[in-house]
Amino acid sequence: MPDEMSRPLIQERSDGGGSRRLEASMSEPSDPVIGILGTGDFSRSLARRLVASGYQVVVTSQMEVASQADLVFVAVFPEHHSTLVGLKPALAGKTLVDVSNGLRINQDGPSNAEQLADLFPESCVVKGFNTLSAWTLQVGPRDGNRQVFLCSDSSKAKKSVMQLCRRMGFIPVDMGLLSSSLEIENLPLYLFPSWRVPVLCTLFLFIFFYSYNFVRDVLHPVITGGKKAFYKMPIETVNVTLPSVALVMLALVYLPGLCAAFLQLRLGTKYNRFPAWLDRWLTRRKQFGLCSFLCAALHAIYSLCLPMRKSARYKVINEALKKFKDGVQDVWVDEDVWRMELYVSVGIMALGLLSLLAVASLPSVSNTINWREFSFVQSTLGYCALCMATLHTLLFGWGRAFEASRYRFYLPPTFTLVLILPMTVLLGRLALFVPCVALRLRQIRRGWERNRNIRFTLPENDCRNGLEDVSNV
Amino acid sequence: MPDEMSRPLIQERSDGGGSRRLEASMSEPSDPVIGILGTGDFSRSLARRLVASGYQVVVTSQMEVASQADLVFVAVFPEHHSTLVGLKPALAGKTLVDVSNGLRINQDGPSNAEQLADLFPESCVVKGFNTLSAWTLQVGPRDGNRQVFLCSDSSKAKKSVMQLCRRMGFIPVDMGLLSSSLEIENLPLYLFPSWRVPVLCTLFLFIFFYSYNFVRDVLHPVITGGKKAFYKMPIETVNVTLPSVALVMLALVYLPGLCAAFLQLRLGTKYNRFPAWLDRWLTRRKQFGLCSFLCAALHAIYSLCLPMRKSARYKVINEALKKFKDGVQDVWVDEDVWRMELYVSVGIMALGLLSLLAVASLPSVSNTINWREFSFVQSTLGYCALCMATLHTLLFGWGRAFEASRYRFYLPPTFTLVLILPMTVLLGRLALFVPCVALRLRQIRRGWERNRNIRFTLPENDCRNGLEDVSNV
Amino acid sequence: MPDEMSRPLIQERSDGGGSRRLEASMSEPSDPVIGILGTGDFSRSLARRLVASGYQVVVTSQMEVASQADLVFVAVFPEHHSTLVGLKPALAGKTLVDVSNGLRINQDGPSNAEQLADLFPESCVVKGFNTLSAWTLQVGPRDGNRQVFLCSDSSKAKKSVMQLCRRMGFIPVDMGLLSSSLEIENLPLYLFPSWRVPVLCTLFLFIFFYSYNFVRDVLHPVITGGKKAFYKMPIETVNVTLPSVALVMLALVYLPGLCAAFLQLRLGTKYNRFPAWLDRWLTRRKQFGLCSFLCAALHAIYSLCLPMRKSARYKVINEALKKFKDGVQDVWVDEDVWRMELYVSVGIMALGLLSLLAVASLPSVSNTINWREFSFVQSTLGYCALCMATLHTLLFGWGRAFEASRYRFYLPPTFTLVLILPMTVLLGRLALFVPCVALRLRQIRRGWERNRNIRFTLPENDCRNGLEDVSNV
Repeated sequence: MPDEMSRPLIQERSDGGGSRRLEASMSEPSDPVIGILGTGDFSRSLARRLVASGYQVVVTSQMEVASQADLVFVAVFPEHHSTLVGLKPALAGKTLVDVSNGLRINQDGPSNAEQLADLFPESCVVKGFNTLSAWTLQVGPRDGNRQVFLCSDSSKAKKSVMQLCRRMGFIPVDMGLLSSSLEIENLPLYLFPSWRVPVLCTLFLFIFFYSYNFVRDVLHPVITGGKKAFYKMPIETVNVTLPSVALVMLALVYLPGLCAAFLQLRLGTKYNRFPAWLDRWLTRRKQFGLCSFLCAALHAIYSLCLPMRKSARYKVINEALKKFKDGVQDVWVDEDVWRMELYVSVGIMALGLLSLLAVASLPSVSNTINWREFSFVQSTLGYCALCMATLHTLLFGWGRAFEASRYRFYLPPTFTLVLILPMTVLLGRLALFVPCVALRLRQIRRGWERNRNIRFTLPENDCRNGLEDVSNV
Repeated sequence: MPDEMSRPLIQERSDGGGSRRLEASMSEPSDPVIGILGTGDFSRSLARRLVASGYQVVVTSQMEVASQADLVFVAVFPEHHSTLVGLKPALAGKTLVDVSNGLRINQDGPSNAEQLADLFPESCVVKGFNTLSAWTLQVGPRDGNRQVFLCSDSSKAKKSVMQLCRRMGFIPVDMGLLSSSLEIENLPLYLFPSWRVPVLCTLFLFIFFYSYNFVRDVLHPVITGGKKAFYKMPIETVNVTLPSVALVMLALVYLPGLCAAFLQLRLGTKYNRFPAWLDRWLTRRKQFGLCSFLCAALHAIYSLCLPMRKSARYKVINEALKKFKDGVQDVWVDEDVWRMELYVSVGIMALGLLSLLAVASLPSVSNTINWREFSFVQSTLGYCALCMATLHTLLFGWGRAFEASRYRFYLPPTFTLVLILPMTVLLGRLALFVPCVALRLRQIRRGWERNRNIRFTLPENDCRNGLEDVSNV
Repeated sequence: MPDEMSRPLIQERSDGGGSRRLEASMSEPSDPVIGILGTGDFSRSLARRLVASGYQVVVTSQMEVASQADLVFVAVFPEHHSTLVGLKPALAGKTLVDVSNGLRINQDGPSNAEQLADLFPESCVVKGFNTLSAWTLQVGPRDGNRQVFLCSDSSKAKKSVMQLCRRMGFIPVDMGLLSSSLEIENLPLYLFPSWRVPVLCTLFLFIFFYSYNFVRDVLHPVITGGKKAFYKMPIETVNVTLPSVALVMLALVYLPGLCAAFLQLRLGTKYNRFPAWLDRWLTRRKQFGLCSFLCAALHAIYSLCLPMRKSARYKVINEALKKFKDGVQDVWVDEDVWRMELYVSVGIMALGLLSLLAVASLPSVSNTINWREFSFVQSTLGYCALCMATLHTLLFGWGRAFEASRYRFYLPPTFTLVLILPMTVLLGRLALFVPCVALRLRQIRRGWERNRNIRFTLPENDCRNGLEDVSNV
């Protein structure tokens, strides 16, 4: 890849006093002179990027930086901030940009930036650039995340940093007052916070169903019949477990939406906030869906591997040997053939639909579709996928649920357990199609309320009349 | 996910007269005061976002909003626009932003925004923000689409809204005059307009080939031989249909480009517009290709499922039983083995190439590659995939096309029908490689014309001489 | 898709002297008048886009364009630049935007833009817009790449072009001085430069391992036993080759990181630049990984195809026939069953992990995750995938490495060759976990140096004390 940083953009200028400045030939007198305190990788990459963007940058002794620059980046470890207090008079009235990060997530505050602001009450502290790596600064914002989150109590300082940010090729995102700095400092420390619950949920379901299937499919034949069955553990048992997890997780994608609808119907308004757990669940639906898709895709691969295995080959040969010994000339069980042809075909369609949903949830795809299209994909196609997956399971289990021999150790077959939640969700969704229920829900979502007491405090009562909301959601 | 909206950014200020303003401590005197008419979800999310971006927002009685604000968002249902006429004098000279959406696609106009402009001839109406949902406004532009389409007849009003837009973290896209507002209002109502023809085409081909295969592979053995064959419907017949659809659709991706080239050769110029159907077809090639890929991928999964089925297992056992009864000791048909090894291998390579094409058409990937790379992937690799897929079909059918027993009910085997279009496309492409044809086409695409009558009206004749186009396409 | 360009946005105005201007009703007196020299597709699309963005555009005779416009786009082939010298006086002091491209990559210079600047020393030449196609200009920047790379020696001229760029809906990226124009002109001519080495490496490994396997698995049985084996070439030999390539390529992803770590440990500092080959290798890791993933995915599909083939079917039937003839009643080799169940299961998990890595390297996904998440996915999950894949190979080969019959033509089994590199990488990684090594490495990466001689020239020595780097990498 081309790299303009390798070109000699930077001219060093040394005046008599030993002070050194880096500048590009295109810097203008009206631009602020930028100073950088700190000499690590980040500082150097920042200096190069700033110079490449046409700014004068001062990187000499601390005092000279503080006195000559109009806008100073503080790129030292926060535990050394206190060593800078000597620069206080020189930095008074100037803008300080705190680029530091914490080592661990800080929930309580104060943030590094707030502590810096306490140390330099006469300077304007702006928090930002901490989400960028030295690497991104060095190669420029061409790939990787271009957003820079900024906050400050001084609107003027923030504006000048935003402009600088834009000129460096990044997209500044205004996060408000300096009280947001804690949040901004935590941003690069998160480890998939939105995935925690869905992944834990997937793991829990996997362990539960795996144990259940292990007892039924491995332990039971070994204990009751002394048959070889432990070899089933790596593939067959996993392959019965994965679709169970996938289907339950898919049902959990659509359950919170149903809960929300029934809650709105019960309260007769959409202006009551949902309980926090429901709110959080609603925002995690994408993650639940992708976990479901991953399990479904793995289930497909495991299933396709079944006939490849030595064990499958031995079984076919053994069956052929046995049938010949028994004098059987034609093996063919029509019910088994039909069942399998049908549930495999329906299963493939369910997987196809889930794949479309997964592709549509890629950020770059979901950004190009409008809300109506998003809703069509995630709601209409999504419910189709849920129906298909449920049908796949029903066809697989059909008849078997009522055979006594399937209740090993009195445990019902796995698929009967698995079907409870998706069937509930599908029935609940059907209930919302009943005309009077559907009509009421539509009214509520357009702003109708059973008890017209405004709970939201912002708007006056009088301006409600005749003016409903233009809700796109 | 972090959510700065949950922080108490908004301070309510109540002055004597009951008027209420929301403001952030960082708003500046030079910024316009923003008013919002309407109290729905959208209005409230908008108010919060504006305040978080540092603006003063007025949300009180209609009259106060109209008189105090410099820039007013009209967030009421368009059918209630007429209730606002009392505010006409107060809104004169101010900028009105119409954020409304239609309920269905409006092809004829006038748009909501144009009707609002008729109601308030002394205000400057800007259309925009209607493509955003209350949800996007609330959580901020961090994920989801950041583009805001704007149009207005007043350049000044549009500019101020663009600036506001940028400060809120969105990317304004200038769509020109207010006459574009109809288009902007329709934007969130479209349901995959570019996919309609490709999807319909796929469905039609699927139904056609499925019926054809049903008659040949299911009905024929049942009627003529009384054999069991209905069980083939869910998987085997689908699996013969899918590759047919995939190959024809892939040929349809490259057919319009050939048509365009031959049209340019025939007319001797590139400055004649293509007929509308060809233009539209050319812009739908990506969708045709993705439909083809979906069918090919499903075909792969269906094929891989074949040996897993009970029916396959029974057939193997039955064949073993029969061979043993017949005293056969070794089954091995070299031709069958070679044919299958070859067409499976070629088929996998075709699928691999199609996967690369599909990945390269993801927006985030296609945005990172330059035009030469795009053309290499979509044209060079694409034609390779078409060749491979055609070869896959040829190898599968080889020899069989000439066996009388394959012409059931006098219907030729499916693959002979399927091959017509891809073979035509490949031969057409070969014709364009003939040196004199290739040279002429290259000349035409660099601007050469057989009859030098300028059809394009903009440029003067005299400035053409010696100045050819710098065409990147 | 909606297309605002089809609307009659452009009004032509003809004054007495035959001069023609295109203007939108919203253009403002303060905006520069734009001229375009050249009449190709690109010029016309540019004119339409500029007018749609509210600019006055002059496209008449060359002299009038030069004299009336404030900012002139030069959209003629670079070999015709010299025909424009007559316009020199009229263009003096004006901004010229050179949009031309080269025909082939130019490594030596001077660039077209630099030659243009030599021709017009009194004008300010800005390079840019050459990466856009006429098509992108015509349909607008809604999809496709929105970035426009600009460079110029005149800061003022560049700024005005950046503003124009932004108003057209594109994102200007400042590339510095005009000396960067060579790079910008080369940008649209590159053909996946970052993929060259990884793809060549994949091809080389494929050819090597394919030949090796061909000799062992095809030639050997034919020569020594006269068995049919050539039929293995299209699928079986490929399927043994692909996982070998995949595993070695995956090891090559993690090898350069290890080299870097050991180099830093040896030199006792992180401030020495890595050798160029290591630097380049480190930036190609993603491409190596994706090549590995492609091979692994193809290996999965080939493996799943195995039982579907006629040859597999014939073999099963032949084995059944033989066993029956021999009077065998039960075939079952416990070791073979367990080995296969285990290595298949582990292989699927490795593929699942690699899929996650591949998805995470899509630009739109990697842009939404922070650095800690990126490192977790690419490093932690990546090493897990490498472990799994190595285990998959070990389980496959277990025991076989020590059977003399496996050393055909004295060649060791393929998997023993394949395992060398991944085992080395895993052992190297383990070595870095040894506490004293890990501690030293952590110190070095926080800025510690064994010999405190500053090699980086920019910062003064005195400002180092106590101020370590805030490195996000």
